[in-house]
Amino acid sequence: MTLMKSWVASANSADSQFPLNNLPYGVFSTGEEEPRCGVAIGDMILDLAAAEEAGLVELAEDPVLDVPFWNEVMELGPEAWDALRARLIQLLAENSGERAAVEPMLVAQADAVMHMPFLVSEYTDFYAGKHHAFNVGTMFRGPENALPPNWLHIPIGYNGRASSVVVSGTDIRRPWGQLKGPNDEMPRFAPCARFDIELEMGAIVGKNTDGPITVQEADDAIFGYVLLNDWSARDIQAWEYQPLGPFQAKATATSISPWIVTKAALEPFRTTTPEREKDLLPYLAEPTPMLYDIDLAVSLQAEGGQEHTIARTNYSRMYYSAAQQFAHHTTSGCAMNVGDLLGSGTISGPTKDERGSLLELSWGGKEPLEIAQGLTRSFIEDGDTLTLKGAAKGDGYQIGFGTCSGTLLPALADPYKR
Amino acid sequence: MTLMKSWVASANSADSQFPLNNLPYGVFSTGEEEPRCGVAIGDMILDLAAAEEAGLVELAEDPVLDVPFWNEVMELGPEAWDALRARLIQLLAENSGERAAVEPMLVAQADAVMHMPFLVSEYTDFYAGKHHAFNVGTMFRGPENALPPNWLHIPIGYNGRASSVVVSGTDIRRPWGQLKGPNDEMPRFAPCARFDIELEMGAIVGKNTDGPITVQEADDAIFGYVLLNDWSARDIQAWEYQPLGPFQAKATATSISPWIVTKAALEPFRTTTPEREKDLLPYLAEPTPMLYDIDLAVSLQAEGGQEHTIARTNYSRMYYSAAQQFAHHTTSGCAMNVGDLLGSGTISGPTKDERGSLLELSWGGKEPLEIAQGLTRSFIEDGDTLTLKGAAKGDGYQIGFGTCSGTLLPALADPYKR
Repeated sequence: MTLMKSWVASANSADSQFPLNNLPYGVFSTGEEEPRCGVAIGDMILDLAAAEEAGLVELAEDPVLDVPFWNEVMELGPEAWDALRARLIQLLAENSGERAAVEPMLVAQADAVMHMPFLVSEYTDFYAGKHHAFNVGTMFRGPENALPPNWLHIPIGYNGRASSVVVSGTDIRRPWGQLKGPNDEMPRFAPCARFDIELEMGAIVGKNTDGPITVQEADDAIFGYVLLNDWSARDIQAWEYQPLGPFQAKATATSISPWIVTKAALEPFRTTTPEREKDLLPYLAEPTPMLYDIDLAVSLQAEGGQEHTIARTNYSRMYYSAAQQFAHHTTSGCAMNVGDLLGSGTISGPTKDERGSLLELSWGGKEPLEIAQGLTRSFIEDGDTLTLKGAAKGDGYQIGFGTCSGTLLPALADPYKR
Repeated sequence: MTLMKSWVASANSADSQFPLNNLPYGVFSTGEEEPRCGVAIGDMILDLAAAEEAGLVELAEDPVLDVPFWNEVMELGPEAWDALRARLIQLLAENSGERAAVEPMLVAQADAVMHMPFLVSEYTDFYAGKHHAFNVGTMFRGPENALPPNWLHIPIGYNGRASSVVVSGTDIRRPWGQLKGPNDEMPRFAPCARFDIELEMGAIVGKNTDGPITVQEADDAIFGYVLLNDWSARDIQAWEYQPLGPFQAKATATSISPWIVTKAALEPFRTTTPEREKDLLPYLAEPTPMLYDIDLAVSLQAEGGQEHTIARTNYSRMYYSAAQQFAHHTTSGCAMNVGDLLGSGTISGPTKDERGSLLELSWGGKEPLEIAQGLTRSFIEDGDTLTLKGAAKGDGYQIGFGTCSGTLLPALADPYKR
């Protein structure tokens, strides 16, 4: 696949996150206007509410693009998704005959505020990166017992909190919680001292399902992908998580990037999951490649300082694909719905600079990460901005995800005083 | 508190679940008509959509009772909740001057189908019954290590799946899942063989909150309570739950009773949580009694057989109240929303006949429960109907919860064949 050219000049640069090949979907607003659906092209956004109102795009009898979420488009199903993408390529391609009608509907991304791109129905987070699971397991139980016995058989997941999901750019408040050191007699209620990131991808469910579905059906039902940062309070987690899993440690916030990159845009970048160390049960077998080759990076910027990349890895490091996770999620008969968000689990690679959390990068705080001259980190400090970036790299073009960013504000002096 | 008399004669019997003191809220339909809001009185339902349309009840400018959920009433806040209850008491009291207008709006419960009473936003399940936690812990780790170290400090909870919540009367399909016995080399994908109930109460969040709230604020924000059966696949759970908690084991279904019993109706039955074995951190202290004295029972009816009570206990056996659980849920800054459902955790008492799950009643299947002549159970068998019942007992009246019931259908021969 090579670059598809657009009459929007900025989309044709090899550096552009959003060439015509991409066309990711978001929700934006400008000035006093209401948030509405848009598609990114180069450094612009095409206002899809306007395009729909003008009859340039028609998906259903009633408008579905003048609302601040993509759920209604998802509800229309894969044929409508394909039709919308085909029509947008037609409108925005270099040789489009409709440039004159479309051009007035472009808004500069620099002038727009991005909002949550969809209503999150329910949120599930997985633990499907083997290097991450191995690193964390080694820290807590030693390398011999690092992976739980079920790990090579089940894409381990737990339900998260949909109300915690926020769009990139939302400030994150350092939480309070119950903390207890291994030698403390009693727990105390205090601000989290080990606040962390988790570099993940989020898959968005675009179809309602009821009853077990196959991995192929799951792949077909995914609408698109976003970057996802599962902010984690490690000290709260350590004390609370036995026996029923993380709870408040994961409920402060989960940030996602504002642009939903569609499965269609990622199609040329499909890749297989790594070799199986133990055979999977047949219901989890991948009939075709369902992971994606997406370069990922994490950066940290201290307050008033420069941005430094602290980790680089690739989505293809995952042991399980989102389709496998989704299929497993339905085995018990669990109904899944449009707008469900599936976090991949932390993505880490085999080398130290590929680790997707500070917990791993600083080895539980024992080996503070040296980021730059005079700048070390074990966990996030107040005022730090953490940013995830991602792009699939094609021949002279890329499918970019934009950024997923958040700044940590200090804990409130008294969380009950409002 | 004594019986408040109604002109609906069936409501005045000491045996009635639904005297004028109760007035629980549900969603019902009759014949071909759309589901709508109603209130139970004796063996009747007052059609509140009709009452609102006739101007007998007025809560807001636009109608809020002609919809198949109580979320809109919850959104109106505690003053509106009180006003509605006061108005319904006025309309239905023995000395009401409006009987003639109201009487045609009564529907026999026997003629109505009950639906989910509210839209579940998110569902959280807790593990806050000490006898249950001790029993389960003893089975797995011995009595010395039965309670996890955090248990007396944290109302342990985990996020469940809102899409799994169904109304009483919905059939439950035995799920498939990954199973692995302790001596098996590999897991297999097969129907669950250890399907179980969990006797719980559900608290319904009636207010949106953002940031940590106190236990008193949490209590104020609870709209009402239902019976809740957290159906559990014990064999799936045993293999999947380490390290991040139960997932598919709890996702098949969660049944709730159709009538929301309001906090106002339960007011005379408030009782304190049991004595603390260790001091709670101040943020969890109960300023006033926040548990309730509610008698609970579980019955089992084999296909074509009689109904037998297999356990009796009381909600006051819980170590933590719903208000304490709710307050803890918000500590990290987790936003809570109208329609969030909080499961209490399995309610068991100190004696064997007070155990709220078959796992406990049959001691993990090692001591099958003798229910009646020729009827024993370790776990649920296909065709069994399990029913939860609950009532707070006043002086010559009771605040009944109705029933929370479900019949287990056999597993599908092939869960992927539709």
